[in-house]
Amino acid sequence: MRKLAAVLFEGFEMLDYFGPLEMFAMFPDEIEIVAVAEHAAPVRASGGPAVMPDRVFADGADYDLLLVPGGRGTRREVDNPVLLDWHVAASARAELVTSVCTGSALLARAGLLDGRAATTNKLAFDWVASQSDKVDWRASARWVADGRFLTASGVSAGIDMSLDALARLLGPEAAEKAAHWAEYVANRDPENDPFARMDKM
Amino acid sequence: MRKLAAVLFEGFEMLDYFGPLEMFAMFPDEIEIVAVAEHAAPVRASGGPAVMPDRVFADGADYDLLLVPGGRGTRREVDNPVLLDWHVAASARAELVTSVCTGSALLARAGLLDGRAATTNKLAFDWVASQSDKVDWRASARWVADGRFLTASGVSAGIDMSLDALARLLGPEAAEKAAHWAEYVANRDPENDPFARMDKM
Repeated sequence: MRKLAAVLFEGFEMLDYFGPLEMFAMFPDEIEIVAVAEHAAPVRASGGPAVMPDRVFADGADYDLLLVPGGRGTRREVDNPVLLDWHVAASARAELVTSVCTGSALLARAGLLDGRAATTNKLAFDWVASQSDKVDWRASARWVADGRFLTASGVSAGIDMSLDALARLLGPEAAEKAAHWAEYVANRDPENDPFARMDKM
Repeated sequence: MRKLAAVLFEGFEMLDYFGPLEMFAMFPDEIEIVAVAEHAAPVRASGGPAVMPDRVFADGADYDLLLVPGGRGTRREVDNPVLLDWHVAASARAELVTSVCTGSALLARAGLLDGRAATTNKLAFDWVASQSDKVDWRASARWVADGRFLTASGVSAGIDMSLDALARLLGPEAAEKAAHWAEYVANRDPENDPFARMDKM
């Protein structure tokens, strides 16, 4: 049984978080989902309801998988040493570290993407890239896998990235099954980025 | 400003709920999202974290839009008169009533789909259809729009349905903008149902 820490902070983006979680949750015997935040209090999504954390950063950083969403809140959290330090500790032990949208800004600021290729969403690209010049930022990519680090492009791209993560963890049939069950038309090619073309990136 | 009631019950499906909410939340000046549940206590998603309701059914049923998710919890809630009665009251006033996945089982049991065409997900189709013989159940449809009622097929289909809802409420450009912002490859044709073909329905 792998334990997945799904990170919460005020102003996180709903689909960044719950899209991948929907896919991971289809394998409850293999993956346990734990919502983790800095404080033991409800955390409000950007424009949506508040979510209860199951655990806090102070409870430890011993997780097998990480999911870091983006959202407006990342603009504040890139300057939060408690959150960044926890990501460093958790990433050191994790088998896979995944982010969606501007979540990669947090990983970059924590120094975790140094020397790696990574991506983020199109509309905040310049801001995210400005968080670290030690990252090989890819403007065109549905998601980027570099070693243990999987960073997705904007919002919905996180679902495709999570299916790649599932394929790595449980095999391609598991990813196929999850997409089918959720009636999700998956994009299985990380290089196929229709939005980079649309936004001329 | 329209007020959207996004219904919560134990065992709701995460993506059914947060996929559409992501799209609606892009228009905070036009749509206010309110998470509504029977009780003022955290409500746990199927396999995921718990979500805080903003209001309870007893606070009233005066909403412009409804979003009813599916999930394992619907098997219990089809027998919950408090929830069904609230849906009847809220639907009487709402401009649009939307459901995702097995959420249409709740609308059907409440009698709200009598004489209407509707759909649900493939894998629970027989169970949902058994909830009411007064509904014209469509096995093949990404989503079905019949008057004020928009019912989506399985999980991810809710995102396509919510973009149709946005197009009706705020115009096709708004739906286009939301899909683009979220880097979501939208299926704009309710009749285009790749999973019905896959499942030979």
